[in-house]
Amino acid sequence: MALINGEQYKASLAKLRPNIYKWGRLIEDVTTHPATRLHVESVSHSYDAAFTEEAGIFTRTSHLTGQKAHRWNTLMTSAEDVLANSQMKRAQFHRTGTCQGATCAGWTALNALWAVTYEADQEYGTAYHQRIKDYFALVEDNSYALAGALTDAKGNRALGVAQQPDADSYLHIVETRPDGIVVRGCKAQICGVAAAHEIICVPGSAHTEADKAAALAFAIPRDAAGITIVETRRPSDSRDEEEGWDSPKAGGITQAFLLFDDVFVPNERIFLCGEYPYTGVFLHYFTAIYRSAIGACVAGQGDVMIGAAINMIQANGLKQKTFQEKLSQMAINNEITYGIGLGAMFKGAQHPSGIWIPDPLLAHVNKTQVATLPYQTKVLAQEISGGIAETGCFPAYQDFQSPEYGDKLVRALTAGIDGKERAKAARLVEWLTVGGGIPGCMHGGGSPEGAKLVVRKSEPWDHFAEYAKRIANAGKLDA
Amino acid sequence: MALINGEQYKASLAKLRPNIYKWGRLIEDVTTHPATRLHVESVSHSYDAAFTEEAGIFTRTSHLTGQKAHRWNTLMTSAEDVLANSQMKRAQFHRTGTCQGATCAGWTALNALWAVTYEADQEYGTAYHQRIKDYFALVEDNSYALAGALTDAKGNRALGVAQQPDADSYLHIVETRPDGIVVRGCKAQICGVAAAHEIICVPGSAHTEADKAAALAFAIPRDAAGITIVETRRPSDSRDEEEGWDSPKAGGITQAFLLFDDVFVPNERIFLCGEYPYTGVFLHYFTAIYRSAIGACVAGQGDVMIGAAINMIQANGLKQKTFQEKLSQMAINNEITYGIGLGAMFKGAQHPSGIWIPDPLLAHVNKTQVATLPYQTKVLAQEISGGIAETGCFPAYQDFQSPEYGDKLVRALTAGIDGKERAKAARLVEWLTVGGGIPGCMHGGGSPEGAKLVVRKSEPWDHFAEYAKRIANAGKLDA
Amino acid sequence: MALINGEQYKASLAKLRPNIYKWGRLIEDVTTHPATRLHVESVSHSYDAAFTEEAGIFTRTSHLTGQKAHRWNTLMTSAEDVLANSQMKRAQFHRTGTCQGATCAGWTALNALWAVTYEADQEYGTAYHQRIKDYFALVEDNSYALAGALTDAKGNRALGVAQQPDADSYLHIVETRPDGIVVRGCKAQICGVAAAHEIICVPGSAHTEADKAAALAFAIPRDAAGITIVETRRPSDSRDEEEGWDSPKAGGITQAFLLFDDVFVPNERIFLCGEYPYTGVFLHYFTAIYRSAIGACVAGQGDVMIGAAINMIQANGLKQKTFQEKLSQMAINNEITYGIGLGAMFKGAQHPSGIWIPDPLLAHVNKTQVATLPYQTKVLAQEISGGIAETGCFPAYQDFQSPEYGDKLVRALTAGIDGKERAKAARLVEWLTVGGGIPGCMHGGGSPEGAKLVVRKSEPWDHFAEYAKRIANAGKLDA
Amino acid sequence: MALINGEQYKASLAKLRPNIYKWGRLIEDVTTHPATRLHVESVSHSYDAAFTEEAGIFTRTSHLTGQKAHRWNTLMTSAEDVLANSQMKRAQFHRTGTCQGATCAGWTALNALWAVTYEADQEYGTAYHQRIKDYFALVEDNSYALAGALTDAKGNRALGVAQQPDADSYLHIVETRPDGIVVRGCKAQICGVAAAHEIICVPGSAHTEADKAAALAFAIPRDAAGITIVETRRPSDSRDEEEGWDSPKAGGITQAFLLFDDVFVPNERIFLCGEYPYTGVFLHYFTAIYRSAIGACVAGQGDVMIGAAINMIQANGLKQKTFQEKLSQMAINNEITYGIGLGAMFKGAQHPSGIWIPDPLLAHVNKTQVATLPYQTKVLAQEISGGIAETGCFPAYQDFQSPEYGDKLVRALTAGIDGKERAKAARLVEWLTVGGGIPGCMHGGGSPEGAKLVVRKSEPWDHFAEYAKRIANAGKLDA
Repeated sequence: MALINGEQYKASLAKLRPNIYKWGRLIEDVTTHPATRLHVESVSHSYDAAFTEEAGIFTRTSHLTGQKAHRWNTLMTSAEDVLANSQMKRAQFHRTGTCQGATCAGWTALNALWAVTYEADQEYGTAYHQRIKDYFALVEDNSYALAGALTDAKGNRALGVAQQPDADSYLHIVETRPDGIVVRGCKAQICGVAAAHEIICVPGSAHTEADKAAALAFAIPRDAAGITIVETRRPSDSRDEEEGWDSPKAGGITQAFLLFDDVFVPNERIFLCGEYPYTGVFLHYFTAIYRSAIGACVAGQGDVMIGAAINMIQANGLKQKTFQEKLSQMAINNEITYGIGLGAMFKGAQHPSGIWIPDPLLAHVNKTQVATLPYQTKVLAQEISGGIAETGCFPAYQDFQSPEYGDKLVRALTAGIDGKERAKAARLVEWLTVGGGIPGCMHGGGSPEGAKLVVRKSEPWDHFAEYAKRIANAGKLDA
Repeated sequence: MALINGEQYKASLAKLRPNIYKWGRLIEDVTTHPATRLHVESVSHSYDAAFTEEAGIFTRTSHLTGQKAHRWNTLMTSAEDVLANSQMKRAQFHRTGTCQGATCAGWTALNALWAVTYEADQEYGTAYHQRIKDYFALVEDNSYALAGALTDAKGNRALGVAQQPDADSYLHIVETRPDGIVVRGCKAQICGVAAAHEIICVPGSAHTEADKAAALAFAIPRDAAGITIVETRRPSDSRDEEEGWDSPKAGGITQAFLLFDDVFVPNERIFLCGEYPYTGVFLHYFTAIYRSAIGACVAGQGDVMIGAAINMIQANGLKQKTFQEKLSQMAINNEITYGIGLGAMFKGAQHPSGIWIPDPLLAHVNKTQVATLPYQTKVLAQEISGGIAETGCFPAYQDFQSPEYGDKLVRALTAGIDGKERAKAARLVEWLTVGGGIPGCMHGGGSPEGAKLVVRKSEPWDHFAEYAKRIANAGKLDA
Repeated sequence: MALINGEQYKASLAKLRPNIYKWGRLIEDVTTHPATRLHVESVSHSYDAAFTEEAGIFTRTSHLTGQKAHRWNTLMTSAEDVLANSQMKRAQFHRTGTCQGATCAGWTALNALWAVTYEADQEYGTAYHQRIKDYFALVEDNSYALAGALTDAKGNRALGVAQQPDADSYLHIVETRPDGIVVRGCKAQICGVAAAHEIICVPGSAHTEADKAAALAFAIPRDAAGITIVETRRPSDSRDEEEGWDSPKAGGITQAFLLFDDVFVPNERIFLCGEYPYTGVFLHYFTAIYRSAIGACVAGQGDVMIGAAINMIQANGLKQKTFQEKLSQMAINNEITYGIGLGAMFKGAQHPSGIWIPDPLLAHVNKTQVATLPYQTKVLAQEISGGIAETGCFPAYQDFQSPEYGDKLVRALTAGIDGKERAKAARLVEWLTVGGGIPGCMHGGGSPEGAKLVVRKSEPWDHFAEYAKRIANAGKLDA
Repeated sequence: MALINGEQYKASLAKLRPNIYKWGRLIEDVTTHPATRLHVESVSHSYDAAFTEEAGIFTRTSHLTGQKAHRWNTLMTSAEDVLANSQMKRAQFHRTGTCQGATCAGWTALNALWAVTYEADQEYGTAYHQRIKDYFALVEDNSYALAGALTDAKGNRALGVAQQPDADSYLHIVETRPDGIVVRGCKAQICGVAAAHEIICVPGSAHTEADKAAALAFAIPRDAAGITIVETRRPSDSRDEEEGWDSPKAGGITQAFLLFDDVFVPNERIFLCGEYPYTGVFLHYFTAIYRSAIGACVAGQGDVMIGAAINMIQANGLKQKTFQEKLSQMAINNEITYGIGLGAMFKGAQHPSGIWIPDPLLAHVNKTQVATLPYQTKVLAQEISGGIAETGCFPAYQDFQSPEYGDKLVRALTAGIDGKERAKAARLVEWLTVGGGIPGCMHGGGSPEGAKLVVRKSEPWDHFAEYAKRIANAGKLDA
């Protein structure tokens, strides 16, 4: 049963134990609650895409079974596979206006663990790699959606893991049993959990020997005993719960804080447990894959911003030509982040374990651009769209319904097109640029400062100095 | 009675007829309704400042009576007066985090009308200038707060005023009576109306003879018969109505759509009525004053962003020094917009009527920077503050109150300081950068494209070409 | 004889008829004249590289003979081949501080003609493709360096080819003979001619039927009868002719104006002759290859700028760490242009004729960055290096030799290192940023406006608008 | 004799002892030698301007004698005086394409010393202030042009003044005599000396007690015994010595290294001598004045760049309208640096000694923009002007004279205008952007890092944090 459709996916999600909260209240059914249903719908689309003309992007032949599987249940073994990852991300934004969430980071983490366990086994004589294989089979067999949980709560940023006054600032082992381990702590700002069956827990930073207890990688069902999940707020998020058109309802994303309260993880689901040198290796592989692909996310969102701006131009009664220079600049921004990512894939190499590792330097250079160019694209979208879209400065849906003055508002908003349609178009720009659809491109998937650190470590500065010295002195009199 | 305090101000506001709506419902009392009370509080602070150490900024000796008056009830007759306007704007942001609203654009419009009526009277033999003087006396005597209504609904942007299919797209005369006029139409996105006693209605674009019916300037009580006001949405605006700390409650701003339904304006309150060439003159003067001063608004907001970022640095357990380069860049952005505005004031000149007109070229150059630099400042605030501030990605106030997991969330958020305090600090950055506190700096007070048009018209391009030609050819052989 | 070394190359060049001028005088020997010898040395290095550890980059197995050949004598049939092109460009800058010149554009033009002749033959029944094959064999057999001449003099930019008052503004046919054609006109700003054996003349713009006479592609020996070549000036170019250290002497580039005065081209060297629709096709293929690779040129030059800045840091007595943020930004700029180019290669496709065509959209996006990022990199190099490097503001080599005060100047310049060495280091930064080594990145290889035109034509704007419309309306009440 | 004309000025210069060198050779007459004459011509124009319609800018009523004097011989006692300084700078660029040199920094230094000596006398009981007054009288009486020498050679940047291995790295006292002092050392990169009668030597950094020997301010004739002056190179500077049109000949600038070899300074010309705390005070005042005005320099140069670009548009046969967006952006850049400077003046204050000190924060903010915006303006000039202007990529003047092919080159360059005229227009863009006319805006007058240091010290960071804290917490439940 390698392929399921959206309905089957939602049915399977609904069977999970309710353990997700928002507004201080338990969410009984993630597939219908307004705080989570939009992301579930997004992911549901991805499942359905296995049966549409986009199947080539959203599925792949399984490396384990040779059967068609959802792409996020398979291994990336070539640059073309990472490219397909990118294409899926961009397509997802085109379709839902938001990111993949439950079919993204967990999948990437499993790929990175494929290589990490391969290496760790060689050093430690462990048998993690076979566990990953088995777990991959389980995932494919159940067509799981997988959240990836990297970021710990972290506590005081000036202190290391072991020095935190509150040990739960990092997810850590509290007990080792013959059949597994017990873990406690908090993973923060985790994307897409509400739409996932399972959570892949992995390190969020490179740990030292003192931090061994936090050097952990494992898979856990989202509703395992002891896990409490609290959804975070997004800008303008309460609009999702309103009726009306003040927030687009095509898709959505969720982020959550995961509270692990003495959660048991059985041995067969553990992929790292104390092998602290491999936390850094994991991040090295994870970020190389992840950051080569995230350019596609912001490119996809940027494409929608371009479309939204074009629609506002028409809605304002104006011509696209007048704004073409700005639209083209938006497109250039999109293609830069997409293109550098492709460059990273092309310049990558195959790991002995079989997965493809894009070039880390280009992947991290890409992160620096992903952290900045989308802001420019947003500013351009606002500039093109005009005042009503910049800050959503026009009345609420409810006011348009007023028998007293609603019609006048519609007339006041009518320009190139009917006022109600123009309002919807403007709300999309607002949502994309200062609302629930903003990308979180700066720190999402790691901050640009971290990426710059990789740049600093990767470039051969001394060689550059040597080239310059040679050129400066070539053929010169010394007199 | 030239000076009143905040309580007196609020009492006077509460007496006005309720004619403001939001969410499809009438707001009975603007001083207490969550959609409007924060802006009323902001303005109330400005009144109270007349009795504090900031009195030198918030008051001025009246040009009419020689008595102390609220600054927004007086004339700007020198560069120093426009500077004080700037200082007041920056101080207002420092205090409330938002702009002046009801003490800003209406006041500036009256100043511009002071000069426009002086000129129009000379050409047309009208007596508008005396009316402005009389109205200024009324304003000072009642310590009025004045909204300024420029922007019309505008309809199809590709069509002129007279060609609009819906005549009400622009505010226009529908009847002339011996004792006044009757007007209809819509003014859109008008700032601070909910906290104002009166509305100064002025042209939002330069009109031609065909548009005479819209060539109008007048003053009207906010609650005059026939006026319906609909408040607009802001990003995350429903948080204002929530309890808790997810939105700062120090101040706020309002924007509204004003629906004029056959509203009578008595003669003594009319300052332009069909003299269409003076609509362009009005805008020339208004924008020169306004755009020399708006650099102070974004500078004041930028100052608060700097402070919010510093507080987040501390909240994260880190040192200011690490981020000083970015903080200094934020400060440079602020001072650029503030400084160019001061340059415009200094390079200005006194109009024969007595008011000071800052240099239009520098004022409009400033607008181009006001439209772009604050975005950079926001990005820096997000970069410094970290992931939780970028998109407000942490749980709602209500979740922190949960008996089941609230305490764990506090611990998860605790870093350099207690988790609850860190949450409040982070929510401020969110509010300033993607929430209700965003400045609307792009199109607010007019779009940068309009400012660039002034730049294009102002520079002596032919002189520049002549200089270059002279230099290129000087002392050269012609051979 | 597929591989020759630098000495053999120079010997072969010296045999050509002298027809190159600078300063109004004939250059008797391009291998020794100061205006041309540095570029000849650069290319000589490329030949020598066939016998060093860089042979893998500078050579390739011939597609015709299966033997090792200089890379610029072979066909690019895969993304990896275009990558090797990039790597060669970057390595060339590392070695000589300048670009490839005579081993770059001509080679790329031949590759594009490989595909163009393949298509043209199918439409017109011509036999151009076989001629290209034969010519390629000749090139490989002689290990030729090939200049590529695209840009015509162009005359009045507001007029088309056929409307020019001076027909010679574009290279055009003046006579058709049984055995060949006679051509006249001017090709302007052609790179590397002085170090080339042959010139590949191709169209510089897409021609219409009226311009048929200029729809030409052919190969011609550099010293063919009727060709006069005039070298252009570069910034600070007369320093090349001075003794001393005021200009680095590791390598150089040349650009020239080519005057064709009734030059005969035999049939076997003609690859297009009037088939005007294929001028646009040629440019489409040429720019896709060329602009995917030029990011490597500016990256290579940027690497040298980084090195030069590091050396200045040391020369000033300071630490690299202090400037690391700026150095990393320089590196990021370099990798962006390099990386997008790699993305274009990866996203490319194989033409039926066998060559690899990188993705045009990403290639042209790259050109927009190549036209801007190197300027930022230069500014950073100047900022890091300090005042003496910014404008070369210190005395000439001759002054350092003065018996009266030379020693005092050396002492005055001594800082972290000896004053003379510091002078050489500073002159390199000057040369790279405002001297003979500046890249010409804006218009070289075509202007960014042209690249933006391709962006405008390539993006599916309507699809973007459609995505946005779907998202804006999804799940919304219509009320 | 307060006013002289250009001829009188040149005659007075020619009387000075020759002590200036370039290319290792003594310059006998600065008014005719190609390395210096262009700057002398620039300054000569400034003298002549006293008798033209620009007299209002280039002269001022003397604060000492009440007579008209050359502006650079008078005191700046008001914001309007500093504005006139700015206007003079911008006008100078319009006229000559370069900066004032000998009528700029020395004058500003004297103004700053006016205030510094006033304060120092109060603390130390010295009589420096009367000396400055007397010296000012001498200057006015002789209509002197004054170079200002701040920057020392500085040696190793990581070491302080007193720790330098070579004591001559900073100008310092070697002997104190009853009638004066003897000084040694080197001042580097000093502007305009060749066109000055006198040199005002002042500290280039804030000194400590250990550096007392370098805490010096004095005035000295340019040709005083023991002074040797070596002119520096500029990009493409040897073109000044060529005939022909490859370099504009309207004006120029000089920078020099000043070697002081036991130079005697009489007491009446000494204004600081060991009072080290006032070296910092001097720089504080000097930079406030200087950096408020330098925005006018780059604005003036930017105006000429605009003009040069417009001429190239016409020369290429194109329309200004097509490039208006870019031209306007160039103008905006110019006005930003000009306008912030005016803001600094306006926000300044009068020193008790009588001079006007612009606001240091805004002056230093301006320096950060002066260091960056002109680079953007240059890029725009190159983008507009096209390939031939970007790197001066067309033949030399001498080639256009060739009887064999000169005429063909003229035809090849002919576009919108005759080829020779187009060549001159293009050479101006080259000169302004990569030639002798580049502004040296980054480090000239001090580096932007120093200016950022002032920003860091000036902003009330704690207040900003306090504002933010108040706003973040206002009206919030603490729960």
